[in-house]
Amino acid sequence: MNIRVTVWNENVHERKNQIVASVYPEGIHGTIAEGLNADPAITAATATLQEPEHGLTEEKLVQTDVLFWWAHCAHGEVADEVVERICNAVWSGMGMVFLHSAHFSKPFKRLMGSPCNLTWREAGERERLWITSRGHPITAGLPNHFELENEEMYGEPFGVPEPLETVFLSWFSGGEAFRSGLTYRRGAGNIFYFRPGHETYPTYHDANVQRVLINAAKWAHNPAPRLSDPNIAPNVPVTEALEPIEERGPRLHQHGEEGFR
Amino acid sequence: MNIRVTVWNENVHERKNQIVASVYPEGIHGTIAEGLNADPAITAATATLQEPEHGLTEEKLVQTDVLFWWAHCAHGEVADEVVERICNAVWSGMGMVFLHSAHFSKPFKRLMGSPCNLTWREAGERERLWITSRGHPITAGLPNHFELENEEMYGEPFGVPEPLETVFLSWFSGGEAFRSGLTYRRGAGNIFYFRPGHETYPTYHDANVQRVLINAAKWAHNPAPRLSDPNIAPNVPVTEALEPIEERGPRLHQHGEEGFR
Amino acid sequence: MNIRVTVWNENVHERKNQIVASVYPEGIHGTIAEGLNADPAITAATATLQEPEHGLTEEKLVQTDVLFWWAHCAHGEVADEVVERICNAVWSGMGMVFLHSAHFSKPFKRLMGSPCNLTWREAGERERLWITSRGHPITAGLPNHFELENEEMYGEPFGVPEPLETVFLSWFSGGEAFRSGLTYRRGAGNIFYFRPGHETYPTYHDANVQRVLINAAKWAHNPAPRLSDPNIAPNVPVTEALEPIEERGPRLHQHGEEGFR
Amino acid sequence: MNIRVTVWNENVHERKNQIVASVYPEGIHGTIAEGLNADPAITAATATLQEPEHGLTEEKLVQTDVLFWWAHCAHGEVADEVVERICNAVWSGMGMVFLHSAHFSKPFKRLMGSPCNLTWREAGERERLWITSRGHPITAGLPNHFELENEEMYGEPFGVPEPLETVFLSWFSGGEAFRSGLTYRRGAGNIFYFRPGHETYPTYHDANVQRVLINAAKWAHNPAPRLSDPNIAPNVPVTEALEPIEERGPRLHQHGEEGFR
Repeated sequence: MNIRVTVWNENVHERKNQIVASVYPEGIHGTIAEGLNADPAITAATATLQEPEHGLTEEKLVQTDVLFWWAHCAHGEVADEVVERICNAVWSGMGMVFLHSAHFSKPFKRLMGSPCNLTWREAGERERLWITSRGHPITAGLPNHFELENEEMYGEPFGVPEPLETVFLSWFSGGEAFRSGLTYRRGAGNIFYFRPGHETYPTYHDANVQRVLINAAKWAHNPAPRLSDPNIAPNVPVTEALEPIEERGPRLHQHGEEGFR
Repeated sequence: MNIRVTVWNENVHERKNQIVASVYPEGIHGTIAEGLNADPAITAATATLQEPEHGLTEEKLVQTDVLFWWAHCAHGEVADEVVERICNAVWSGMGMVFLHSAHFSKPFKRLMGSPCNLTWREAGERERLWITSRGHPITAGLPNHFELENEEMYGEPFGVPEPLETVFLSWFSGGEAFRSGLTYRRGAGNIFYFRPGHETYPTYHDANVQRVLINAAKWAHNPAPRLSDPNIAPNVPVTEALEPIEERGPRLHQHGEEGFR
Repeated sequence: MNIRVTVWNENVHERKNQIVASVYPEGIHGTIAEGLNADPAITAATATLQEPEHGLTEEKLVQTDVLFWWAHCAHGEVADEVVERICNAVWSGMGMVFLHSAHFSKPFKRLMGSPCNLTWREAGERERLWITSRGHPITAGLPNHFELENEEMYGEPFGVPEPLETVFLSWFSGGEAFRSGLTYRRGAGNIFYFRPGHETYPTYHDANVQRVLINAAKWAHNPAPRLSDPNIAPNVPVTEALEPIEERGPRLHQHGEEGFR
Repeated sequence: MNIRVTVWNENVHERKNQIVASVYPEGIHGTIAEGLNADPAITAATATLQEPEHGLTEEKLVQTDVLFWWAHCAHGEVADEVVERICNAVWSGMGMVFLHSAHFSKPFKRLMGSPCNLTWREAGERERLWITSRGHPITAGLPNHFELENEEMYGEPFGVPEPLETVFLSWFSGGEAFRSGLTYRRGAGNIFYFRPGHETYPTYHDANVQRVLINAAKWAHNPAPRLSDPNIAPNVPVTEALEPIEERGPRLHQHGEEGFR
């Protein structure tokens, strides 16, 4: 069965700003989904902020293997309930790919547990991405480096936890360097952050970027059955201990009692 | 100057349960602080849930180099505002040590970005801790293994992110193994999780445990000046770029504008 | 195309010791290969110390996607030239799975850069393995824990570098705990260490162990084209710099010169 | 007691090349040691390739808390016996800082277990280093970025294992980015790789670089007693098992026998 991707976009700039609308007439989500659907192993659909429950109902998440997230000016409009639902899906095994300004989105900050801040400059400067992890699946089919002629700059220090692996670095004309591709795991869910993608530039039309996103969808996909409850903390009764033990000493909990949260 | 530790405790069991009160007549926080104060380089004070703002005002956190956290049945009573204040302090450079059932505390879950769940059994069984990171500063002065005759069991899988380093493993009589000492870094703050410490057993009176806590305070202490704002995401104007560049292409932001959050 | 596995074994105990011969009449390598071949996506063959070049010619390694390694008493008899060949294959993208006493093998020590030592006891005690990384591909289809009724004990501290991920812990009847499943990456090659497998016990006939090995083969397999030279350190001439620069300052190397090694 | 640093240098370019001799009249080692000695907590001495045993006898290493290593054209002249001695010292707890072209030195490659290759260009271009790990002890007292007006370029992919932490990135005028400060742990020894330091440029006279090296010496210093034998793999007899067990099943080893290597 194909990898089922949902590309989520706040979909605000495209509707308010003529420049963005002209670069992404079908929305950033539309262009990203189209790029992903070019791979026969992927079936990508979209969802946006404006839909009921932002288009991310429980049912939708259950049917999503990998969720892509683009957002910029409307982070605060995402309902906390949906954020919690997303995090639970990730912990249960849903993959997630955060793009560009999604570094400040609620789900990313929630999953990282850190400020996720950086420096930035919107000057249409050149960005060159370098592969740091040779042979990593997210780099499949890519040259050792590739360029985006116009991009927004993001600079270090990037306030994220040390990743499992640093996959890309970026070089910028204005003098900055940045860790642009980072992998994480939270619960059973694989997470990838990928830096490029400012809304006023045609980044998601770039063939190398499209290749990265296809690779990221495949890498983030966890084929294991989704966990039914990623937060469960079961008591193991003494009588069911794997090695025979006798209860000793004082105790606080009564038999069969649930733990505190 | 000495390392300034604040030992925080929800301080509930000690006041409601005679067993806990008899094991920790001065409160779990009192015993932990006393053990830390045995080291001449540490000055430990305490704070509890019942104090105004849980005893953790901005001023208190500024004066705290390392915050220890013990909690179990009252996680939900900790004010979200204080949790956010704590996380900001950690990101700014405050060290933090989470003890035992604090795995389910709000600040730990917030900083980990994961469920932090596990299995458990309260049977007073034997726990034996093994050092896995030879020569790690948190293991200074310890034998390769040591025992706690009565402890609560915690079992894997432990729902936390892969740590920077795994420092201790635990063996339990009833058949489980557990990663009992884990290091993390979030922003400029060092974080250590240490498993033992069930309230009905005299764990914090144990000399090896006291040694671990002293070591952990020293390890978690970051002597660098606290960051004034760990969440800042400054714009770098084109005119201040480190390499001369010219603004190119379309743009969304106006000059001097703040970024979106 | 199937994943091509080569199971290498020193194949000494099986030929000298009746107990081992009776447990593994086709050799440890034979039993492991048979278990792997039960998966339709894997084609496993074998190679042994006694063959010319230990059965690991350049051609053989080029045709091997994942190399399994079992060894115990004959580590010193493996030719250094073959060890170097293996390391180069790993760095180029060949996966490798090290089993049990292979912790002291030349290729493992060479790839880890550390002592790889541990404590041990041969008493046929019970080992119980616990999954620590929920949903990790190497744990697919496994219960949260499983037992081996008779195994050799390995104890911490295990002298290996901090892994990318800790996948399994072991509990032993005699009181030890151990990190039993560890993932690494060296160059483009994925490496997995898996603890169980003492030669006098029927470990490789165990269904759960066989499942781990099948999963490990799939996880370690890197489908990217093998790097032609994993050690290349090319000079980038000034005239080919990606950004226009002029040569400045004094220089040591002549144009077109190779770097020092 | 002060941190005892030994700065090792192959000391070849300085004696053969007038440019290098004029930049480093006291040798690269002399300048580095002088910079380190500016810190009252450090006592730095030097050793060179030309001395008996390269100046690194067992006694010298025992008295060295942190070893700095600069080398370029004479990697192959370092005796394998001395390399093994150095690795054993690191595994026992000696800190080690590898500088610039030491990425291809025997001890670095031995400790990393990977090719350690990269791309390079000697054009005196500008290098700008960015801090990626805010508040990391190796960055104490440094600005978020600093420049070296003339440096050799090193480019990714850098063939090293994923580090514990990435501390610095470099930006180069010619278009490359590089992970320039990386931390590792091997056995009880802390290892730091720091990129800058080409012999024809005055890098080690730079105040920021000197600050990094002082910080690195303090970070790499492990105050724990040196392990007497970092490679020991002791048998734990059944009679000394921490939990009472009985020997079961067949066995290969005789009582009191040493393990195989």
